[in-house]
Amino acid sequence: MGKFEYSLGLNELKSKEQRLWQSLIGEFMGNLILNFFACGACTQIENGTFKALAFGLAIFVAITIVGHLSGGHVNPAVTIAMLVAGRISVLRALLYIVFQCLGAIAGTGAVKILLDEHYRGSLGHTALETHVTELQGLGIEFFLGLVLVLTVFGACDSNKPDSRYTAPLAIGMSVTLGHLGTIRYTGASMNPARTLGTAFATDNWNAHWVYWLGPILGGVAAALLYTQVLEAKAPPKNT
Amino acid sequence: MGKFEYSLGLNELKSKEQRLWQSLIGEFMGNLILNFFACGACTQIENGTFKALAFGLAIFVAITIVGHLSGGHVNPAVTIAMLVAGRISVLRALLYIVFQCLGAIAGTGAVKILLDEHYRGSLGHTALETHVTELQGLGIEFFLGLVLVLTVFGACDSNKPDSRYTAPLAIGMSVTLGHLGTIRYTGASMNPARTLGTAFATDNWNAHWVYWLGPILGGVAAALLYTQVLEAKAPPKNT
Amino acid sequence: MGKFEYSLGLNELKSKEQRLWQSLIGEFMGNLILNFFACGACTQIENGTFKALAFGLAIFVAITIVGHLSGGHVNPAVTIAMLVAGRISVLRALLYIVFQCLGAIAGTGAVKILLDEHYRGSLGHTALETHVTELQGLGIEFFLGLVLVLTVFGACDSNKPDSRYTAPLAIGMSVTLGHLGTIRYTGASMNPARTLGTAFATDNWNAHWVYWLGPILGGVAAALLYTQVLEAKAPPKNT
Amino acid sequence: MGKFEYSLGLNELKSKEQRLWQSLIGEFMGNLILNFFACGACTQIENGTFKALAFGLAIFVAITIVGHLSGGHVNPAVTIAMLVAGRISVLRALLYIVFQCLGAIAGTGAVKILLDEHYRGSLGHTALETHVTELQGLGIEFFLGLVLVLTVFGACDSNKPDSRYTAPLAIGMSVTLGHLGTIRYTGASMNPARTLGTAFATDNWNAHWVYWLGPILGGVAAALLYTQVLEAKAPPKNT
Ligand SMILES: [Ca+2]
Ligand SMILES: [Ca+2]
Ligand SMILES: [Ca+2]
Ligand SMILES: [Ca+2]
Repeated sequence: MGKFEYSLGLNELKSKEQRLWQSLIGEFMGNLILNFFACGACTQIENGTFKALAFGLAIFVAITIVGHLSGGHVNPAVTIAMLVAGRISVLRALLYIVFQCLGAIAGTGAVKILLDEHYRGSLGHTALETHVTELQGLGIEFFLGLVLVLTVFGACDSNKPDSRYTAPLAIGMSVTLGHLGTIRYTGASMNPARTLGTAFATDNWNAHWVYWLGPILGGVAAALLYTQVLEAKAPPKNT
Repeated sequence: MGKFEYSLGLNELKSKEQRLWQSLIGEFMGNLILNFFACGACTQIENGTFKALAFGLAIFVAITIVGHLSGGHVNPAVTIAMLVAGRISVLRALLYIVFQCLGAIAGTGAVKILLDEHYRGSLGHTALETHVTELQGLGIEFFLGLVLVLTVFGACDSNKPDSRYTAPLAIGMSVTLGHLGTIRYTGASMNPARTLGTAFATDNWNAHWVYWLGPILGGVAAALLYTQVLEAKAPPKNT
Repeated sequence: MGKFEYSLGLNELKSKEQRLWQSLIGEFMGNLILNFFACGACTQIENGTFKALAFGLAIFVAITIVGHLSGGHVNPAVTIAMLVAGRISVLRALLYIVFQCLGAIAGTGAVKILLDEHYRGSLGHTALETHVTELQGLGIEFFLGLVLVLTVFGACDSNKPDSRYTAPLAIGMSVTLGHLGTIRYTGASMNPARTLGTAFATDNWNAHWVYWLGPILGGVAAALLYTQVLEAKAPPKNT
Repeated sequence: MGKFEYSLGLNELKSKEQRLWQSLIGEFMGNLILNFFACGACTQIENGTFKALAFGLAIFVAITIVGHLSGGHVNPAVTIAMLVAGRISVLRALLYIVFQCLGAIAGTGAVKILLDEHYRGSLGHTALETHVTELQGLGIEFFLGLVLVLTVFGACDSNKPDSRYTAPLAIGMSVTLGHLGTIRYTGASMNPARTLGTAFATDNWNAHWVYWLGPILGGVAAALLYTQVLEAKAPPKNT
C-alpha cells in the first residue's frame, strides 16, 4: 500500500524534499517562455529557419532554467512518456500537465496583450496545411513526439554520462529539427500545451485532437522503444 | 561596520585579489564587442536570423573572453540583478555599469568611424515599431530581461555543475531567442548599455527610458524568482 | 582461427554482450530520422541554411539517441571507414549498411505516405546540377566523405577526452558544413544510404554510383589519413 | 644558447616528440577545409547567414580534426599572436604559416577544378566594398583579428578548465560572429591565408596587404591584451 501511495504520488503533496511546488512553477515558466518567445517569433515576417531556431532555443533556455527542478519536460507528451517509463508518479504527471497548459496560455496571453492587433496574425497557432488530412497530421505529429522523446531519453540516460553536459542543447535542437522537417505541414507542434495556448488565445480548435494524440502516442512509443531496446547498459560495478 | 564596508565595496578599490580593474576592462571589452559586431550586423541588408545570431554569438564570445574576470555581465540589467541577489557590491555594480556604457559607446563609435555614411543606417539602434506603445515596449523589454537573467542564474548555479561547461553558450542563445521572439517590436535590446551606445552615436533618445527600466525590472524579478523559488538545492554534504 | 572468426564477426551473432541487434535497430532508426526529417525539410520552400541545419541536426540527434549502441555511424561511408580502421568486423559492417539503407528507405517512405503529392517535390533526392559532370560530382562527394569521417575520428579519438562531450554536435555540424559548401552542386549527400532512400522512393537512379563511390573513397582516405598521421598520441602511462 | 635554440625552434626539426610534420599536415588540412567548404559556400546564391555559418563551422570542424596536433591555428594571425605570446617558436610559426597558405591554395584550387566556370563567381574571394577605403578595411580587419584571437586565448586558457570542452565551438562561433558583423564591408576575412588562397586562384591582389596587416595587428594586440590584462589567475596550489 505504501507502493500504491507512491505510484499515485499522494505523498508528494506533503514532502518538502521533492519540491513539488517549485517544479510546478518551473513547468509553468518553461511553457510561458516557449509560447511567449517562440510562438511570438511566428508573428514576425521571417522565414522557417527563424521559427525553427526560436522553438529549439526556447526549449534549450527553458531546460537551462528549470531542468534541475522538474526535469524540464515543458511538454505533456514528455510528461506522459516519463509516466509510462515509471519515472514520475500519476499525480505529479497530472499537475505538470495542468501547469504546462497554464504556462502556455499565459505566454500567448502576454503576447496578445503586448502586441497591437496589427501584429498578432495567428499568434503562432499550429494548423494543418490545406492538403494535409487529419490522419496525415496525426502521423507527422507522432513522428515529432517520437524523436523528441527519444532525444530526451538518449540525452539524459544516466548510463551515458558523456551526454549530460550538452543534454539541454540536444533536446532543444531536436525541437528545431522537428520544425525544419515538418513546419509547413502541421506547424510542427509536437507539444499539446503549446498548441492549447495558441488555440485558447485565438479560439481556434480545428483538428485540436491531432495535436494531443499525435505527440502523446509518439512519446509513449519512444518511452517503450528506448527503455526496452535502446537504453545504455549500466557500466559494470567494481566490487 | 566591516560588513557595511563590504557591501558598499569600498575595500575593493585597494584589493589586488579582486582584480577590479581587470574586471572593468573586461566589461568594457564585452560591450565593445557587442556593439561593434552585433549592432554592426544590423547595418547590413540581412534578415532577422542574421541579426539574432549576431547578438547571441557576441554574448557567447564576450563571456568566453572575460567571464572569468568579471562574471561576464556585459549588461547593466544583469549587474543590477546580481546586486539584488547579493552577489556583487554596490560600488562594483556602479563601476561595471559605467564601463559597460563606455564600451558600448566605443563599439558603436568605432563602427561609425569605420563605415562610410552610405552604410551606417541607424547603426543598429533599437526603436519601438509604429504600433507599439511605450507601455507595451516596457512589457516586452521586461520579459527580455527576465528570461536573460533567469538563464544567467540557471546556467551559473553552483549547485548545478552540469550546466557550467555550456553556460556561455546557453546565455548567448537566450539573447538570440529574445531577438527571434521580439526583434520586430522593440529591437529586442534587453540591454540598456547596448541601446545607450547606439542612442549616443545617433543622438536618438526616443523612448530611451523604456530600454533602461524594462530590462532592469525584468532582471530584478528574475533575481528574486530564481533565488527564492527556482534555485537548485545544495547537494548533501558528506561528513 | 579465433582471430579470423573475430574479424569476420561471426561470434557476434551469438553474443549478448555486443548487443548486435540493438545496434542494428539503432542504425535503422538513425537513418530513418535523417531521411524523414532532413530530406523532408527539402520538400519545403526554404533556403539553403534551412536544409543544411536540418541534415546536421538530424545527425546530432541521431547520435544522441543511438551513438552508445552502434557508434552512431548512420552512414555506410562511416561504417566502411571504421572497417578499414579495424574498429568493426566485416559482418557487423555489412549488417549496419543493410539496416542503414532500410532505415533510409523507411524514412523517405513515411514522408511519401504522409505528404500529399502536392508537397512531395523530389522528396529531397540528391542530383547533380546541370553543369556538374559525374567526375566532378565524384570529387565533391569524395571531399564530403573525407571531412565527415575526419571529424568522426577527431571527435571520438579516445586519446583526446576533451572532445567527447561535444562529439555528437561536432559530427552533426560537419554535415551542416558539407551542405553549406556544396549543396548546390551534388545536393551534398555524403551518405549513400540517404541517397538510396530517396532514389528508391522516386525511382531516380541517375548518377547513383557517384553517391556510393565518392563518400566511401573519401571515408577510406580519411581513415588512413587519421590513423596513420593525425591520431592523438596516447597520454604517457604512470607506472 | 640552449634557450636561443629553443626559441628559434631548430631542435624541433629533429624531435619526434613534437610531431612537427604531423602538425604541418594538420594546418594544411585545416586551411584546405576552410577554403574548400567555406569559400565554396560563397559560390552559391545564398544569404549572409549561410556564409557566416560556413566559415564558423569550418573552423569548428578543423579544430576538432587537428587541434590536438598543431593547436588548430588555421590562420597566420593566430600563429603570429601565439609567437608574440611565447607559446610557439619562430621556426614552427614560419612553417605553420607556409602550410596554412599552401592548404588555402589547395582548397580553393580544388573548388576551381571541381566547379564549372559557370558556378565559380569570385570563388569566395574577399574584397573591399565600394565605399570602404583601405584604411577603413584595415580597421575592420584589425577588430576581426582582435576578437578572434581573444576568443582563442579565452577558450584555451589553462587556468579556465570550464572552457575547454566547448573551446572549438567558441572559436568557430567567433568566426561566424565576425562574418555577421562585417561581411558586407571587407568580406570578413580575418585570415591572411584564406584570402591568399582565393587571391591566388582569381589572380586578384587588390588591397591584399590589408588582409595581412589588419588581422595580424589585431592578433598581436589581442595577445598582449590577454596575456597582460585578461588572463585567468592560476588556481592556488595546495602544498
Ligand atoms: Ca490530399
Ligand atoms: Ca496601437
Ligand atoms: Ca561543364
Ligand atoms: Ca567614402
